[in-house]
Amino acid sequence: MAPHPLDSLAVNEINVARQVILDDYSNVVIDFREIFLQEPRKAELQQFLHLEHTGCLSPSTKRPTRLATCQYDVVGANKIPEFHEATIDISNEIIVCREVVDVQHHASLTLKEFDDLIAACHASPLYQEALAEFILPEGFEVIVEPWPYGGLDASDKNMRFFQGLCFAQDKRSNNEDSNFYGYPLPLIPVMDARTKKIIRIDRLATGGKGDSLNGKTNSRNIINHCVPSDYAPELLPKGTRKDLKALNVIQPDGPSFRVKGNLIEWQKWRFRVGFNPREGATIHDVHYDGRSILYRLSVSEMTVPYADARAPFHRKQAFDFGDGGAGNCANNLSLGCDCLGVIKYFDGVITDSAGRGKLSPNVICLHEQDNGIGWKHTNWRTGRAVVARNRELVVQFIITLANYEYVFAYKFNQSGGIVVETRATGIVSVVNIDPGKTSDYGNVVSPGALAQNHQHIFAVRIDPAIDGNHNTVLEETSHRVPINPETNPNGNFYEIRQNIIRESQWLDAAPQHNQVIKMVNRSKKNPISGKPVGYKFMPAPTQLLLADPNSVQSKRALFAHHHIWVTKYKDGELHAGGKYTLQSQKEVGGVADAAARKDAVEDDDIVVWNVFGLTHNPRVEDWPVMPVEIHELHIKPADFFTANPSIDVPSNKNVSSQLVESECCSRS
Amino acid sequence: MAPHPLDSLAVNEINVARQVILDDYSNVVIDFREIFLQEPRKAELQQFLHLEHTGCLSPSTKRPTRLATCQYDVVGANKIPEFHEATIDISNEIIVCREVVDVQHHASLTLKEFDDLIAACHASPLYQEALAEFILPEGFEVIVEPWPYGGLDASDKNMRFFQGLCFAQDKRSNNEDSNFYGYPLPLIPVMDARTKKIIRIDRLATGGKGDSLNGKTNSRNIINHCVPSDYAPELLPKGTRKDLKALNVIQPDGPSFRVKGNLIEWQKWRFRVGFNPREGATIHDVHYDGRSILYRLSVSEMTVPYADARAPFHRKQAFDFGDGGAGNCANNLSLGCDCLGVIKYFDGVITDSAGRGKLSPNVICLHEQDNGIGWKHTNWRTGRAVVARNRELVVQFIITLANYEYVFAYKFNQSGGIVVETRATGIVSVVNIDPGKTSDYGNVVSPGALAQNHQHIFAVRIDPAIDGNHNTVLEETSHRVPINPETNPNGNFYEIRQNIIRESQWLDAAPQHNQVIKMVNRSKKNPISGKPVGYKFMPAPTQLLLADPNSVQSKRALFAHHHIWVTKYKDGELHAGGKYTLQSQKEVGGVADAAARKDAVEDDDIVVWNVFGLTHNPRVEDWPVMPVEIHELHIKPADFFTANPSIDVPSNKNVSSQLVESECCSRS
Repeated sequence: MAPHPLDSLAVNEINVARQVILDDYSNVVIDFREIFLQEPRKAELQQFLHLEHTGCLSPSTKRPTRLATCQYDVVGANKIPEFHEATIDISNEIIVCREVVDVQHHASLTLKEFDDLIAACHASPLYQEALAEFILPEGFEVIVEPWPYGGLDASDKNMRFFQGLCFAQDKRSNNEDSNFYGYPLPLIPVMDARTKKIIRIDRLATGGKGDSLNGKTNSRNIINHCVPSDYAPELLPKGTRKDLKALNVIQPDGPSFRVKGNLIEWQKWRFRVGFNPREGATIHDVHYDGRSILYRLSVSEMTVPYADARAPFHRKQAFDFGDGGAGNCANNLSLGCDCLGVIKYFDGVITDSAGRGKLSPNVICLHEQDNGIGWKHTNWRTGRAVVARNRELVVQFIITLANYEYVFAYKFNQSGGIVVETRATGIVSVVNIDPGKTSDYGNVVSPGALAQNHQHIFAVRIDPAIDGNHNTVLEETSHRVPINPETNPNGNFYEIRQNIIRESQWLDAAPQHNQVIKMVNRSKKNPISGKPVGYKFMPAPTQLLLADPNSVQSKRALFAHHHIWVTKYKDGELHAGGKYTLQSQKEVGGVADAAARKDAVEDDDIVVWNVFGLTHNPRVEDWPVMPVEIHELHIKPADFFTANPSIDVPSNKNVSSQLVESECCSRS
Repeated sequence: MAPHPLDSLAVNEINVARQVILDDYSNVVIDFREIFLQEPRKAELQQFLHLEHTGCLSPSTKRPTRLATCQYDVVGANKIPEFHEATIDISNEIIVCREVVDVQHHASLTLKEFDDLIAACHASPLYQEALAEFILPEGFEVIVEPWPYGGLDASDKNMRFFQGLCFAQDKRSNNEDSNFYGYPLPLIPVMDARTKKIIRIDRLATGGKGDSLNGKTNSRNIINHCVPSDYAPELLPKGTRKDLKALNVIQPDGPSFRVKGNLIEWQKWRFRVGFNPREGATIHDVHYDGRSILYRLSVSEMTVPYADARAPFHRKQAFDFGDGGAGNCANNLSLGCDCLGVIKYFDGVITDSAGRGKLSPNVICLHEQDNGIGWKHTNWRTGRAVVARNRELVVQFIITLANYEYVFAYKFNQSGGIVVETRATGIVSVVNIDPGKTSDYGNVVSPGALAQNHQHIFAVRIDPAIDGNHNTVLEETSHRVPINPETNPNGNFYEIRQNIIRESQWLDAAPQHNQVIKMVNRSKKNPISGKPVGYKFMPAPTQLLLADPNSVQSKRALFAHHHIWVTKYKDGELHAGGKYTLQSQKEVGGVADAAARKDAVEDDDIVVWNVFGLTHNPRVEDWPVMPVEIHELHIKPADFFTANPSIDVPSNKNVSSQLVESECCSRS
């Protein structure tokens, strides 16, 4: 059977694309980076989807060409890699187009490059000499944690670098999962990715309040004041708690969803789930009860800048989607760990270091969950309570980026709402600090371990299709009206103002005015209210990027300067921070550029981007693994339906719930 | 066994207090309103709790006196009720003190007064004449929905009024739960509570945009354009959906909590739950692993002002705690409806119209729930993932106030956090609107039914006891620092500023600066970070009260003018909007007055109030019963512990979770 146009490339499709490239070159080395589905142009895909929705697909229907985006380096005689990007027609095994990417841009990192950094450290006398300055306790070994290099300085002349954060691991327990992050070493080896050589060792300041910006440590016994900080249960000094009893989610009749390939149907919802190396799970062609709501929904980008003023910490700034790829870093999930109940897993396909397709099992999970009361009303005259629970369908993926993890979930509910949830967890990034000192740059979360202040700023890309492709954004705000005899004699009135977004632009959150962003179809009115059908969200007024606007950190993350961006749809324009973020000095081709086109966006094919984040000044309780910090973006119908869509959810009693009658009801 | 000092009054204790009052008067009628526990003075209770915590309680320990607050009207020969409030010593059956409440204040309403209004309407020729102006379809009957009268006008001279919103109910189905709110009638009868007579019928405008403020309807067939809007499953035209399969929460080993009387112990948490007619469930004496965190936590007040400029809608403003009482309006919860799993219910005791104690069963429920991933880290070198789930303990109560419901929950988690959750649901308040019209005052959610714009503004009262009684509030904000060679050479640094709250005052939310409110104990430093131990929350920057500051709506809800209030603890100062809210013209004795004392609040016994809300401009999807609008206040440890308190939560696989292997996995 032919793949659906939104199916990720299969292993064999990737291998075909790879071979097309290999066959086209000679006398050069091809270093493959990434091969993944190039989603069909919207115009073409919409035609196909229309036929699909109307039941008119047949074996003879012309389907969008299966295209692969192929990213690779070409290394010729001069040994200098040239970064190419090609589009391959998989069926016809031809190169459709190809370009040499401008040298200002850098390809996303590959895990191979991380391995190279570790190997380069081992082979580097420079690195070994620097390490020898320190005395590690017996049984400790050094761990190098590869990181992207952050934004290049102008003097770096488009070089490709990687940096390694160094820690010591206590090997005496013979447990490879003993937590080395609690033993930070004040060294950062830097590798030139072309030569795979360590070219420099950055020495890190270990001082505290009042110490100079570049004050380096004088102690050779650099981790003698550090302590174990394990999280693996077998390494906890007191083991795990014993008084937590089982809580099981049982679905005796199976799940309420139906899955066929990438198509998911549940409670009047119908959508497709995609997966790509950069964005991880993506959501497509979202319908409710046969009506179109979204064309595409994705977590587009995030940046994590660190705020320690001491060089080279300004280069600690990750773009977790653009630099490494959320799909590439997606966890392979396990039953009974990442969700409860009846779970459907989806596999992904990624590219190995030789450019071949490789199955990555269980990268997405799908399950239902109960989220408390959905709606309730009690008629106090009769005492009759009618209460419906709030069942949700969750599409979840989890990424690990060195020390940190993010849990992303798209949650669909019975009231017609979609929630994009992010949970930040994992291990906060720490650096060595001298005994007894504290710092303006972070918090000491374990002796000798300074968790640096930082931000996480996310961008969610919403490509609406509210009852069709021609949509408009309205900014709706509520305002006080002074008492006056004509319109507000008693002072209780407030007015709702509407700002129609006519040109692509940014907006900032305005919670003081109860700002609501509505995505509406003005050609279709709600038959009850007379207002255009729409969906809405309230932009969270979280703190935006704090770095000075003239800093490299700031210039390369223009998307993080505002909470909302409204742009005109353009094929391929998926990435809030631009297509190439690794080592970028400025954001190119991101939302800021898209907005700056000043496209007309009334009754048009538009994209709405929501930016939110977390200024994370760590607390001791974030150590050694931080409790989840949760953010939710709620996308809700606003006069899209003619009533609460969940009003027909059964209000049956759950017969398996049990009563605790007695006192002292439990203690093992 | 002697009751715990925080135990609500038992039925017999209420009856004793009642008798003490009755015995003390002669030749007058005593109209009882409310009899409830007067919590012991803090100084006295703390002594007791200290003995309790240190295991030093004995039968001979002197316990705080059991005191009842007794509110009642004394009606003498002149027939004018005088509102009295007395404190009764229950053991000694004596009146400890008594006062006649100033006539500017009004006692909370009683359900008896609501019944009086309905009876008064039936008996009122004025009302019957007004009704006769309209022709109702055959089989429809009128329903009067009693409401508090809102803020009095100066000309009202401290009268006591009640107003009734009128609707028509379709009785043809013989179902008392057919939804009458969809058939609003444009009449508001007003009752004088002393005479129990309808003194006036307010006529309501039914016009739309462009119509005058007092344009009244001309149509006698006032609900002919209205339609059914049922939510009871047996009345839904298409019934309930069939494709939702069971999701059961099973706890085979029982709950992980232990309950003894009002004492709850769970996962190192230890606290007591109280219940009173005004606040509903309250939380007391919160400890974690033997360390004190909070003295008391409660939802203190809320106000719901409506924004329709047309008189008399400015009098639609409820104070759900002060006017009617959340405890009095608490739902009697049912197994399998309001939560899943193993549930413990707590009964409450309220006062009946004769002043006798009356059991109100199942007013609070207690259960555990799973809230997804609590923390996770994968070591990418070994592939080992350690993931702990986020188990929560939930103390929940639900109130019904005429058309509206609120679900309140105090949620304790394993990471040392406490979440106060509010869910607004129920039926939005609607008024009649002429066919085909729309309005600036709300949204037409059903033909002929205009859901008026309104706000819900809540106040949560946090009485901290962070490792003891002497606490300080710090406002912490994060700020950009311009690039400069001395402190910020690369522009990535940001600084954290601390504002020590020295005097009682208000603050407003400042999300643009990542404002965090910390409640700390400066006499105790975290041994790791060196910072004072504390708990923190981020005030949600939701829109504050919109009514003009000179309006009655605004003056009687000063608490709703700011997001945060810091006050010095004072016995009995529990109510953000003042003790007496019914018909108030201004807030008296609320947080604004408390803050205005300019008490010193450094290293002192302090109270922190958080105000948040929802500007609710209804959407069609809020009809006929609105999906929950959820708000969460997260109170989290901030350098209180020496590590993540949930790090010892077992990361065992949940063995009852099941895999969906095949495609097309389900469809009945």
